[in-house]
Amino acid sequence: MDRPVSRLQDTRGQRQVKILVAGTGAVGSFYGAKLGQSGADVGFLCRSDYTLVLQKGVEIESVWGNFHYTPSVVVSSAAAYRDHSGAADIVLVALKSLPCIDVQAIIRDAVGPGTSVVLLQNGIGIEQSVAAAFPANEILSGIAFVCINRVGPGRIRHTDYGRVVIGRYQAGMSERLAAIAMMLERAGIPTRIAADIVMERWVKLVWNAPFNPLSVLCGGVTTRDILDSPECTLVARRVMEEIVAVAAAEGFVLPADIIDKNMADTARMEPYKTSMCLDYESGRPLEVDAILGRVVDIARRRCVPVPHIETTYAILSAVAARMTPCRQPGE
Amino acid sequence: MDRPVSRLQDTRGQRQVKILVAGTGAVGSFYGAKLGQSGADVGFLCRSDYTLVLQKGVEIESVWGNFHYTPSVVVSSAAAYRDHSGAADIVLVALKSLPCIDVQAIIRDAVGPGTSVVLLQNGIGIEQSVAAAFPANEILSGIAFVCINRVGPGRIRHTDYGRVVIGRYQAGMSERLAAIAMMLERAGIPTRIAADIVMERWVKLVWNAPFNPLSVLCGGVTTRDILDSPECTLVARRVMEEIVAVAAAEGFVLPADIIDKNMADTARMEPYKTSMCLDYESGRPLEVDAILGRVVDIARRRCVPVPHIETTYAILSAVAARMTPCRQPGE
Repeated sequence: MDRPVSRLQDTRGQRQVKILVAGTGAVGSFYGAKLGQSGADVGFLCRSDYTLVLQKGVEIESVWGNFHYTPSVVVSSAAAYRDHSGAADIVLVALKSLPCIDVQAIIRDAVGPGTSVVLLQNGIGIEQSVAAAFPANEILSGIAFVCINRVGPGRIRHTDYGRVVIGRYQAGMSERLAAIAMMLERAGIPTRIAADIVMERWVKLVWNAPFNPLSVLCGGVTTRDILDSPECTLVARRVMEEIVAVAAAEGFVLPADIIDKNMADTARMEPYKTSMCLDYESGRPLEVDAILGRVVDIARRRCVPVPHIETTYAILSAVAARMTPCRQPGE
Repeated sequence: MDRPVSRLQDTRGQRQVKILVAGTGAVGSFYGAKLGQSGADVGFLCRSDYTLVLQKGVEIESVWGNFHYTPSVVVSSAAAYRDHSGAADIVLVALKSLPCIDVQAIIRDAVGPGTSVVLLQNGIGIEQSVAAAFPANEILSGIAFVCINRVGPGRIRHTDYGRVVIGRYQAGMSERLAAIAMMLERAGIPTRIAADIVMERWVKLVWNAPFNPLSVLCGGVTTRDILDSPECTLVARRVMEEIVAVAAAEGFVLPADIIDKNMADTARMEPYKTSMCLDYESGRPLEVDAILGRVVDIARRRCVPVPHIETTYAILSAVAARMTPCRQPGE
């Protein structure tokens, strides 16, 4: 037969699924450790925490229960992983969505003909370049709804939520998607399969596009602080309206009540610091392009006016440019 | 006769003009000292620098020539000025344009029937409340184009420019306006009389509305930094377009080439830190309302869309709200 046999079939008993987690910040470490805890053979591709994780594994403090996980292998490059374990069945990408991070270059050596690539990243437009780099591989796209933090090297604190929405890129269903979703669910991660994951990304962006940037630009503030300002609340709504308009121009018609619902939900929830705000306060690079820049590009291509997003984007870019420059993993 | 005699007529030889400068930051101290140097009887209404200025006067380091000036009287209230000197011929207001600074309350006791009030302040909409408080007095409105800084208590550094545009509020000409303009000119201050000073304020706002806020929001940057970012340059242009549109709705048709000219002039000039940027870096209150807030109010009343201004305003307000709160002089 001319198509590679999926090793995920092996989950039905034959042998452990081999997973390589690329990007072992909070999200990658947490979901990787959960999968490992449930029986998968999970390797960690680490950057700064390499030595510590190699020696001590990762410590997960979680509302779902604390645990310690020792990865089956800790590597500092995909080539090292391949030399040790061969190609991965699944490469779980939890790297930041940053222009300086070349996902395909980082994972290439661990990707074989039967490897599925799962992109568990923020923002929109994160899949194209990876899909183009691995045209014969299954590319899955996932969104994590989780409150989680890396509180130290190899130390992760999971404080709330945790569900994952996952789908094939660009759309549709597959056995492998279903198998991976089941695997996540079995690992204790509430998982939903989406037939149109790009649509789901637009849905999530309706919230992220206003609240992530405003939380940074207003000086490192919570959702409550933003909503306490009538002017910021208005801008948040306008940004949401512009996201809805750009999504529509791309063919994704979002629910009519999505803005009212987002605003009401945000008003109800505890004051929350967005991940971008935490990145800002810690001096880590901001995901400006994935959250705003690509929307601006699409809007211009589609001739959709996005003045509120455009202003926010310009200022956020300037702020980000004055922070620590982004580094490739391994640098 | 039922109209008060203008004491400015006295400048033709009889006696010194009595001027009270309210707001002895950089602008007030500089222009007050220049007027005093040229022979006017200039009193200073001081807040934080009261004791020092009383003892030592003010030290002016200026590209026009350094000099020291001892005010004819230094007071901490308008009532104290009146008790010492009677009503002023001219009250020169160089206070910040801030909601917490009640200009009429601060100057009232020094304003008599013949007093002219000269508002040398930033932004638009600064005149209405003062004009309403003193309906029988001549209200003049002035714009200073000057690079100047208070480098310490009673110490002012004037580094570039210095001209003043002055006019009657709301418009028109008068002998007293002409006399005050001549007095400024004789004091070595290049002065132009404007028949429509509100129009001049809109003209100046075309530059201030983008560059003052962006210099703060982009992280305390120069005009060069703003123009180095294509996204910020675009937003600066869009903010200018919105100012032009709001001005037009108010009946002020600005020159067709004003935006191109502003952008080109800014690109040509040395990297410059706006006064708002300096205020920001020194933790002083920002003139958010005078530069953006009132424009937003007018735009909403006139139904002119100002999305770029609105976004900038919301973020700037949030930043300002987290800085040191504004204090009334004397607090």
